[in-house]
Amino acid sequence: MTEAELLAALRRLPLHPGALELSDDAARLGELVLTTDLLVEGVHFLPDDPPDDVAWKLVATNLSDLAAKGAVPEGVLLGMPLHDDGWDRPFLVGLAEVLAAYACPLLGGDTVSGGRTYALTAIGRAAAAPTRGGARAGEALWVTGTIGDSGAGLAIAQGQPGPATLLARYRRPEPRLAEGQALAGLVSAMMDVSDGLLIDAQRLAAASGCAVAIDLDAIPLSADYLAWSGDRMAAATAGDDYELLFTLPGAILPPVAATRIGRCDSGAGLTLISNGALVPLPATLGFTHG
Amino acid sequence: MTEAELLAALRRLPLHPGALELSDDAARLGELVLTTDLLVEGVHFLPDDPPDDVAWKLVATNLSDLAAKGAVPEGVLLGMPLHDDGWDRPFLVGLAEVLAAYACPLLGGDTVSGGRTYALTAIGRAAAAPTRGGARAGEALWVTGTIGDSGAGLAIAQGQPGPATLLARYRRPEPRLAEGQALAGLVSAMMDVSDGLLIDAQRLAAASGCAVAIDLDAIPLSADYLAWSGDRMAAATAGDDYELLFTLPGAILPPVAATRIGRCDSGAGLTLISNGALVPLPATLGFTHG
Repeated sequence: MTEAELLAALRRLPLHPGALELSDDAARLGELVLTTDLLVEGVHFLPDDPPDDVAWKLVATNLSDLAAKGAVPEGVLLGMPLHDDGWDRPFLVGLAEVLAAYACPLLGGDTVSGGRTYALTAIGRAAAAPTRGGARAGEALWVTGTIGDSGAGLAIAQGQPGPATLLARYRRPEPRLAEGQALAGLVSAMMDVSDGLLIDAQRLAAASGCAVAIDLDAIPLSADYLAWSGDRMAAATAGDDYELLFTLPGAILPPVAATRIGRCDSGAGLTLISNGALVPLPATLGFTHG
Repeated sequence: MTEAELLAALRRLPLHPGALELSDDAARLGELVLTTDLLVEGVHFLPDDPPDDVAWKLVATNLSDLAAKGAVPEGVLLGMPLHDDGWDRPFLVGLAEVLAAYACPLLGGDTVSGGRTYALTAIGRAAAAPTRGGARAGEALWVTGTIGDSGAGLAIAQGQPGPATLLARYRRPEPRLAEGQALAGLVSAMMDVSDGLLIDAQRLAAASGCAVAIDLDAIPLSADYLAWSGDRMAAATAGDDYELLFTLPGAILPPVAATRIGRCDSGAGLTLISNGALVPLPATLGFTHG
C-alpha cells in the first residue's frame, strides 16, 4: 500500500466532521485545532542527531501545523519512549526549551519502553482556521521565509560541509505562529511546507480545485543557501522548511514578510516556470512515505 | 531513568492546568477529556498478534481511559506506520470494527514509514470527570467485571493452553464506557485497571492521600479463569484488564455490575488481606516500563 492508498482506506472509516475528510494537516473541534505526528528515528531524524534538537523538532513541526491554522498553542500531549539517561536527559532539556520558546505547556502524555518513536499531539485555539482548500483562480501564491535551508542542513548533518546556520534550520525549525495568526483572517488557503514546496503546492492546488504555477526564479533562497549550492530545484523539493504557503486575492498584500512565488489558475495541477518558459517537473516533487 | 524519574522530570516542564500535574490518565480542556498512548510491538503487543486485534486494542485501551472519566468518545487521532499490505489491510479492518463498536469517528492522524509503533490520542466529552485523587478514608473500593482474564490470555497467546474466551480478553478488551458514564457522577475516585489491580489501587491511594486495603478473596475472577489457574495473586498483578476501579461512600451502591473488593483507610499505602489476615505484598504489583 502506498501512502495515498492508506489515506484512501482511512477515508472509508467513520470520519468526524472536524476531520475535514483527512484533507488537511489539522482537525477542527469547535474552536480547537488538533494535529498529531509521529517522529521516527531513521525516518524523521538521524540516529546521531542531538536529542535536544529531536525534542525541539518534534514539538516545532506540530506547532507549524497549528501555525498554518493561525492557532495559538494551547498544549501538547507527548508519547515518549524511555531510553537511556544519556539520551533522555538532553531530550527533556530540548523539550523544556521548545515549550518555553512557544509558550506551550504540556497537557499530558504516555511513557513507554521501546524504540525511538515519539508521538506528539498539539492542540491550539483558532477563530478562523484556513484550510488548504480555499484557493481560487487569479489569486497569488506566497511563502514566508526562505526555502531549501533545511534540506541543505540535512546534507550537512549527514556529513557534507556547510555552515551551522543551515544545520540549525534542519534541527531547530521555527514554526511561524505569529505569521500564521496575522495571516489567518486574510488568506484564502494556507498550509505549512513540510514535505517540499512543490509537492505541498500541488496538494494545495488539488484541495482547492485549481491549478498552481510557480516561478522557480522567485522562490526565496537565503544568502547561506545561495553560497552553499543555490540549487533552486533541490530547494523546492527538499522539504522540512516549515514555512507557510498561502494564497491571497491579487489586491491584498500579506502583513508579514513573505515572497510572491506564483499564482492560481483555473484547471488542475502544478506548472513550473523559469525565465517565462515552462520547466519540466522533476521526478520527485518532495517527500512521501512508503 | 526509571518511569517514575521520567514522570518527575516531565512534571518540572511548563504544565497546563488541565494536565492535573500528570497525576491522571487523561487531561482536561473545558468539557473535553484527552488521552494519548503509544502501542509498541514487542512491548504492548506480540509480533504474531493478529493485526486487526492490535488495532482494536490500540483504540480500546485509550477509550478505557475515557471510560474512567465517564466520557462519551468524540473522536481519535491516529499515528500509523505504513507497513506491508498483509499487515496494514487487516489492521484497517480491526480499526473499522472498533470505531464502529464504540461510535467513535476518526478525527485525524499521521501516516509515516517506520516500525510498528502506533500512537493514538482519544478525545471525549464529560461533564463531571472524576480523577484518581478523590477517595476518602471510610469509602469502599469497587471494581467492574473480572480481573486476571487478560493476563491469562497473554500466557495463552504466548503458547500456553487455554480457552479462546481468555485469549479474547487479552486481544479485544472492552472499554467500560457505559459503566463509566453511569458511575462518573457518583464516585469519589475512578481509574481504569491497565497495569495491574494492585499497582493501580496503590496509585489511586497515593493520588487520594489515603490507604487502601484489598481483600484478595473478594477479587472477582471469571469461571474460565478459575478453571484455567485460579491464581488470585497472578490475577491481581497481571494488568491489561481495562476494568474500572472506583470508590464510593459506604452507603452508595454502584448502578452497574461491580464487586466490592476493599476499603480506604486513613494513612498511606496498600495492604492485602486474605481470610482476615495480612498477606505480604508480592515483589511486583503490576507492570511498569523501563
